[in-house]
Amino acid sequence: MKLAILGTGPVGQTLAAKLDGLGHSITIGTRSPAATLARQDPDAFGNPPYQVWATAHPKVQLATLAEAAARSEVIINALSGAGSLEGLALAGEPNLAGKIVLDLSNPLDFSKGMPPSLFVSNTSSLGEQLQQRFPSAKIVKTLNTVNANLMVDPGQLAGGDHTMFVAGNDADARRQVAAFLREWFGWRDVIELGDITTARGTEMLLPLWLRTWGALKTPAFSFRVVR
Amino acid sequence: MKLAILGTGPVGQTLAAKLDGLGHSITIGTRSPAATLARQDPDAFGNPPYQVWATAHPKVQLATLAEAAARSEVIINALSGAGSLEGLALAGEPNLAGKIVLDLSNPLDFSKGMPPSLFVSNTSSLGEQLQQRFPSAKIVKTLNTVNANLMVDPGQLAGGDHTMFVAGNDADARRQVAAFLREWFGWRDVIELGDITTARGTEMLLPLWLRTWGALKTPAFSFRVVR
Repeated sequence: MKLAILGTGPVGQTLAAKLDGLGHSITIGTRSPAATLARQDPDAFGNPPYQVWATAHPKVQLATLAEAAARSEVIINALSGAGSLEGLALAGEPNLAGKIVLDLSNPLDFSKGMPPSLFVSNTSSLGEQLQQRFPSAKIVKTLNTVNANLMVDPGQLAGGDHTMFVAGNDADARRQVAAFLREWFGWRDVIELGDITTARGTEMLLPLWLRTWGALKTPAFSFRVVR
Repeated sequence: MKLAILGTGPVGQTLAAKLDGLGHSITIGTRSPAATLARQDPDAFGNPPYQVWATAHPKVQLATLAEAAARSEVIINALSGAGSLEGLALAGEPNLAGKIVLDLSNPLDFSKGMPPSLFVSNTSSLGEQLQQRFPSAKIVKTLNTVNANLMVDPGQLAGGDHTMFVAGNDADARRQVAAFLREWFGWRDVIELGDITTARGTEMLLPLWLRTWGALKTPAFSFRVVR
């Protein structure tokens, strides 16, 4: 399948590596491919520059956000929360129209200190803002409640005995994304919460996620809905 | 132990019945004991009036919020979120001073339709508001992430293989509450998140809790932190 991954950071790289390994045709989208490739220094978290990763994954293409979206059947938004509205606008709504957009972003606000708060929550969500701004896209919020390693390999934790959530307006798109999660990554327990307003719930899990990380001293955890 | 339970609703009744059964001396606090006892009709959810429950639990005392708090060593806030600040004010800070207050409340706002949103979240929490307003009390947020039946009997679900969170400024009070949860109710997995600001996380779990209830069609579920 032709897949676009928007965002060159650790989340985008982790998704791209996994999906490339499964034989999909991957294009990573970035604002400026030339600038992305020119970077020589590690990022703020110490991750090596994109070029280092790209050399190890020669089949993965790099393109502008618009080119990546235009040539792909399904889009994965792995941009930061703060960059998602602008990033999808650069991708271009015509290139998103009618397509499933897996939205992995969280509206983290780092401006008020650590741990971050959310720049939208409670009566709206970033998922809803994206759906409102790009009505012809099928925005499906998912994977935003675990770190990148667990997104693509839930089985590394408790044999995969934990839960992933799916939120989106289009019921067929939700079902398709749930199927992607199972087929691509091996997620076994997927709960379809409902329309995109249910993304409030999973985005608002982040404060608990961040504080649990603090208490456990590791991000290698996930939530299971026990029932 | 002498325990005050603030609130005569289903949560208060469920806690009182369990703790009475364990041999503790329970006083339920209410704004007006006379008005509580005079009620003849079921509440908005169809629960029988307090007097019916009280007849079946003759050892449980009923008193004003202030009397209940004054005569007890530990306080359990089982008032509604909207009524908690006023209720603890009526209990009286001198009657709370130096005591552990288990705060079970959630800041649910029903004014904007269903499911409810939160009247405080993200950069504050109801737990923090209570701690700021009553600085001499040891507010410990807990049990607010499951329904009343699971609060007092976690073992009825998956043999108790799910998680309860504890948030509060006083480390000794957090540890004591974690011990209460284990001894009174049989909670096996208790995570001490940290100071009362971590109550934001557990209160902000409510939107996900409410939508998961909608998806599963039952409130008989709980979250487990899988690690």
